[in-house]
Amino acid sequence: MAEKMLAVMKKKRASGAELVTVDIPRINPDEVLVKVKATSICGTDAHIYNWDEWAQSRIHPPMIFGHEFAGEVVQVGDQVKRIKVGDYISAETHIPCGHCYQCLTGRQHICQNLKILGVDTDGCFAQYVRIPEVCAWRTDRNIPPELASVQEPFGNATYSVMESDVSAKVITIMGDGPIACFATAIARAVGAAKIFGVGEFPYRVNLLKKMGADVALSILTHDTVEEIMDATSGEGVDVVLEMTGAQKAIDDGFKILKKGGTFTAFGIPPSKIEFDLSNNVIFKGAKIIGINGRLMFETWFQLSNLLKFKKVDISPVITHKMPLKDFYKGMEAVISSKREVGKVVFFPEEK
Amino acid sequence: MAEKMLAVMKKKRASGAELVTVDIPRINPDEVLVKVKATSICGTDAHIYNWDEWAQSRIHPPMIFGHEFAGEVVQVGDQVKRIKVGDYISAETHIPCGHCYQCLTGRQHICQNLKILGVDTDGCFAQYVRIPEVCAWRTDRNIPPELASVQEPFGNATYSVMESDVSAKVITIMGDGPIACFATAIARAVGAAKIFGVGEFPYRVNLLKKMGADVALSILTHDTVEEIMDATSGEGVDVVLEMTGAQKAIDDGFKILKKGGTFTAFGIPPSKIEFDLSNNVIFKGAKIIGINGRLMFETWFQLSNLLKFKKVDISPVITHKMPLKDFYKGMEAVISSKREVGKVVFFPEEK
Amino acid sequence: MAEKMLAVMKKKRASGAELVTVDIPRINPDEVLVKVKATSICGTDAHIYNWDEWAQSRIHPPMIFGHEFAGEVVQVGDQVKRIKVGDYISAETHIPCGHCYQCLTGRQHICQNLKILGVDTDGCFAQYVRIPEVCAWRTDRNIPPELASVQEPFGNATYSVMESDVSAKVITIMGDGPIACFATAIARAVGAAKIFGVGEFPYRVNLLKKMGADVALSILTHDTVEEIMDATSGEGVDVVLEMTGAQKAIDDGFKILKKGGTFTAFGIPPSKIEFDLSNNVIFKGAKIIGINGRLMFETWFQLSNLLKFKKVDISPVITHKMPLKDFYKGMEAVISSKREVGKVVFFPEEK
Amino acid sequence: MAEKMLAVMKKKRASGAELVTVDIPRINPDEVLVKVKATSICGTDAHIYNWDEWAQSRIHPPMIFGHEFAGEVVQVGDQVKRIKVGDYISAETHIPCGHCYQCLTGRQHICQNLKILGVDTDGCFAQYVRIPEVCAWRTDRNIPPELASVQEPFGNATYSVMESDVSAKVITIMGDGPIACFATAIARAVGAAKIFGVGEFPYRVNLLKKMGADVALSILTHDTVEEIMDATSGEGVDVVLEMTGAQKAIDDGFKILKKGGTFTAFGIPPSKIEFDLSNNVIFKGAKIIGINGRLMFETWFQLSNLLKFKKVDISPVITHKMPLKDFYKGMEAVISSKREVGKVVFFPEEK
Repeated sequence: MAEKMLAVMKKKRASGAELVTVDIPRINPDEVLVKVKATSICGTDAHIYNWDEWAQSRIHPPMIFGHEFAGEVVQVGDQVKRIKVGDYISAETHIPCGHCYQCLTGRQHICQNLKILGVDTDGCFAQYVRIPEVCAWRTDRNIPPELASVQEPFGNATYSVMESDVSAKVITIMGDGPIACFATAIARAVGAAKIFGVGEFPYRVNLLKKMGADVALSILTHDTVEEIMDATSGEGVDVVLEMTGAQKAIDDGFKILKKGGTFTAFGIPPSKIEFDLSNNVIFKGAKIIGINGRLMFETWFQLSNLLKFKKVDISPVITHKMPLKDFYKGMEAVISSKREVGKVVFFPEEK
Repeated sequence: MAEKMLAVMKKKRASGAELVTVDIPRINPDEVLVKVKATSICGTDAHIYNWDEWAQSRIHPPMIFGHEFAGEVVQVGDQVKRIKVGDYISAETHIPCGHCYQCLTGRQHICQNLKILGVDTDGCFAQYVRIPEVCAWRTDRNIPPELASVQEPFGNATYSVMESDVSAKVITIMGDGPIACFATAIARAVGAAKIFGVGEFPYRVNLLKKMGADVALSILTHDTVEEIMDATSGEGVDVVLEMTGAQKAIDDGFKILKKGGTFTAFGIPPSKIEFDLSNNVIFKGAKIIGINGRLMFETWFQLSNLLKFKKVDISPVITHKMPLKDFYKGMEAVISSKREVGKVVFFPEEK
Repeated sequence: MAEKMLAVMKKKRASGAELVTVDIPRINPDEVLVKVKATSICGTDAHIYNWDEWAQSRIHPPMIFGHEFAGEVVQVGDQVKRIKVGDYISAETHIPCGHCYQCLTGRQHICQNLKILGVDTDGCFAQYVRIPEVCAWRTDRNIPPELASVQEPFGNATYSVMESDVSAKVITIMGDGPIACFATAIARAVGAAKIFGVGEFPYRVNLLKKMGADVALSILTHDTVEEIMDATSGEGVDVVLEMTGAQKAIDDGFKILKKGGTFTAFGIPPSKIEFDLSNNVIFKGAKIIGINGRLMFETWFQLSNLLKFKKVDISPVITHKMPLKDFYKGMEAVISSKREVGKVVFFPEEK
Repeated sequence: MAEKMLAVMKKKRASGAELVTVDIPRINPDEVLVKVKATSICGTDAHIYNWDEWAQSRIHPPMIFGHEFAGEVVQVGDQVKRIKVGDYISAETHIPCGHCYQCLTGRQHICQNLKILGVDTDGCFAQYVRIPEVCAWRTDRNIPPELASVQEPFGNATYSVMESDVSAKVITIMGDGPIACFATAIARAVGAAKIFGVGEFPYRVNLLKKMGADVALSILTHDTVEEIMDATSGEGVDVVLEMTGAQKAIDDGFKILKKGGTFTAFGIPPSKIEFDLSNNVIFKGAKIIGINGRLMFETWFQLSNLLKFKKVDISPVITHKMPLKDFYKGMEAVISSKREVGKVVFFPEEK
């Protein structure tokens, strides 16, 4: 095994990142070392790159970031039992403590002592990454690395949809990012009767349509509340999946939510919102479900089945593919103001 | 309105039925009169026709039988509020009392004083039928009468599938009758990851395949338990929908059920079965869900969405269409030993 | 039957109310006439009396208000089937239309065309009241009128607790009004492991304690968040029942909610709140359940069982009893600034 | 630490057991060694002692049996993280593999590769026992060893009751063994409206009454089906907890089950039963829930709360306490034909 590797490092408490050559990580007895075949950019990585308020409060440079990947296990620690050298894996990025109330009751994803890969530990924008065995997810070899890498965000979408009980229902998905696109495909696969997609950027609204939205509308050009209420005879939709975190999307989402409906909150508002608890929730007899991460590992089994049995085709969301050395180019696409981008996937090793 | 109508009547306590001309029924204040546009044969009708043990204990001739139909409302009683003359409707066949514990808690379908259309009251194998307003289901006019007529059994299938939580799961459907065919299409529509269909008659096993089974096997030619266990790495399937009532199907169903799985019981065994409660249910931590009828009217909204938004195409199941005067021909197809039949639909008025 | 009756009427668009003598109401064919044996004051009645902003927008004087009562049926309309003259009843105050989506799927309590007794129709602060048969709830004769009258708000509490899954869990109830008191008794009856009651007024905090709170704290004298977090080893509580609608109670409620917990929203904020959706709901993987009314009639069966089988003793909450002619005295107790009051019950007929 | 210990060993493939002195067990890196303070007899141990058909097929002598205990951790392996020397613990007896589908989705209790303490490994009828860390349950020191020892069967009862949703419902518990007694106390604690206890042996029926059954009946002296149907106006009960495994109890349980009710199957029939699936389950729209073990560790948190916060007092069920050297005396009490016994607890160390 080579002793050095290429990696993308946040070196300083400032915007940007650097391509560096560093030592390949050494594993602990309960960890595995993975040779990264593909790694993809998440919105969180853009926050770290841009060094925004959240990043300043959470990230401790110098560190390698990135948390979405797929690769091959090349080394396993002494205490590792389930995973073998040669396994093709992706990873759950929530690293649970294993002994708190949540961990002992099947809710490791909201562990009280949660660490996050590439946020609290060195990440996977690199040729190698080490992860605890507990986070490794053995992946079907028929799923190519570029798709296997995005299983983690696809899992956010899967968890959101599966908790929302959408089969045979009329729903709205607010948002046009990759996870909203994934959620659209999943909702379609599990039989949502009609899907309204509400986005902003034309390129992405088009992507929503491609992923299975029956109607895809941009808030820039449509009165989306009026159109959806008209199309549902004034009753609204059974389920709203909120995947933006924007005040307007949340407000609009509740305006179009049917009495007795379910509002699934995934998009993270950057600060407090104004909220009409009485009319949005109480008088409606509505329910709000907060989604964080994915179930470990119920959601992973579900998403594997969706991919393995070809219930969804998420390849249209992978709009950019390039070598890891072109990191800046990929990141620029993600943070560009036009958002003509779905997912950006890097290959650490040139082909 | 004509004063006489054509109807199929069970006149005597013996096998068979007669085509008769009788008075058009008069409605009570809480009832509506429907001009039947299409009516279809259910297995229950075959039991009545064949005058089997169950029929002998339940049916009181002379009576018109049949309970699946679609038609147009031509008259409404004084107390009728929701339904109007001219409405295009089908009907829930469970007639609830409206005041027992089950009726008062949203479970009218298992009312303590339940009556069934065409079993306890005159049915719809006729040019006109009267039903209580509470059972009328207004139907989208884009759904043609031949499909609207089978909404009731399609509702059995919908209720069975929706209670079983099949999305992203591997499942088996035991049975090859029309309801098993419908269930296959619905399971596929709501995202079952893989569907094994287990039937008997070649014609119908082929129909299961057409309706969306990934694998469709006949017990006549396959060791279905072995094949399904092999295909699931010995783990079995997450959900079994049992739609035959046969001892062998029930036994096999539990053999292939995964630990922690769900067994949905819809097929009615004609007598007591031998049952391994310990290994089938307790040691497995499994669940059995008994399905009778359909939720009034949650299931009807769901099935309407599935049909209206074209999530399923059930037209291949409608294998025989003919005028009501050809009743015997249709019934013969249903009870023939080869079972080269899906659903038989009659049109009371010739076109 | 006497032709005139005593009633409390809101005559003008201004604060206050008047004791009047008016005609006994005439019933419609689907209604029943009830001789009121006891009637009680709800917070809504205080809003109407005080003529606050909500009342001004919703209430159309002249009208009789009041909606909580128990009494005897003295007359039934021609279409009435379930209820008989002589029945001892109380009433669901949500009057459903019976034909909207919610009504047809077991959610009449959030009917799209909902009317409320004593708000949208004449109410029960009177010797007689007429109600639709569908709202009548036959009550066990062993439950005295003063307790039977408060079944409706007791039902709010029952629905709130039953939706929140509190058995064997550590919970907090925010609020010290009668419904919070009821909820405390119910949570205790269904096995909440530990109940923190958080109130304001000393008299009522004492009542919470009496109804079964293990710890009852006033926000006037305690740092309730700190005390509850300390008492739960910093983990917080599994369930929060919010029954005040106050910004501080909502904020505090989420501060003490465990990751993965349930927040049940019943108290109605008078205007929009500031809300930290990210930290309160999303990062916590929490759930918010909006409670409006009571299930028709699942909740009524539950509350009947709780009362009939003496699982709760709610008599301590009935702190004031008096003839209806002392209406002003009763209302003054409810709106006094000291809140030394639980429920006020009136008897229209002097004993 | 002493090198030898007292233990109860199944030495031969025949009925009986022997008190022996053997080496204290050596632990693996992921195990802990526990000094046993109390250990109790389960029905399974009586099967092993009596060497019945099940025991002959499953048990491989020589082995120490017994699986219920409480004690103090005296040694921990190198890989142990959560548990410390000095911890006061009891144990989950289901030893999960940690890597199968069930283990990875929060259902370790029905692991595909499940081993059971004292059945598949050496057990706790001894002064010391070794267990995997994953099975150790840290117990509140205020719970004395004799009660802490029975947490495992108390957990069966807790899981059975919690899955059955009994609050405010009328229920029947079939059985009079210790777990039925525990279930009675728990059902009462979580607010079952009325509990019918159906047992056999007079001593134990009396115990059911003491634990909270509103009505406790022996099948030897009562027509229990008739009495329960009469007491429920012919409607039957909402929930049946079947804790005997006897054909008659199962038959009777379904006879008294309300339409739409829940039947929780815990008692293990020794062989196949005759079963009326049509009338018991399908026409009733009923549900059967199979209970095996306890949730790891949701159930343990629940049972801890029930004990710690004194929601139940299970001490009346502990009818016999003695030193471990009196093992035969204790076992004789359990297998005596009169069944004048609840739980038998042994103290390995004399006081």
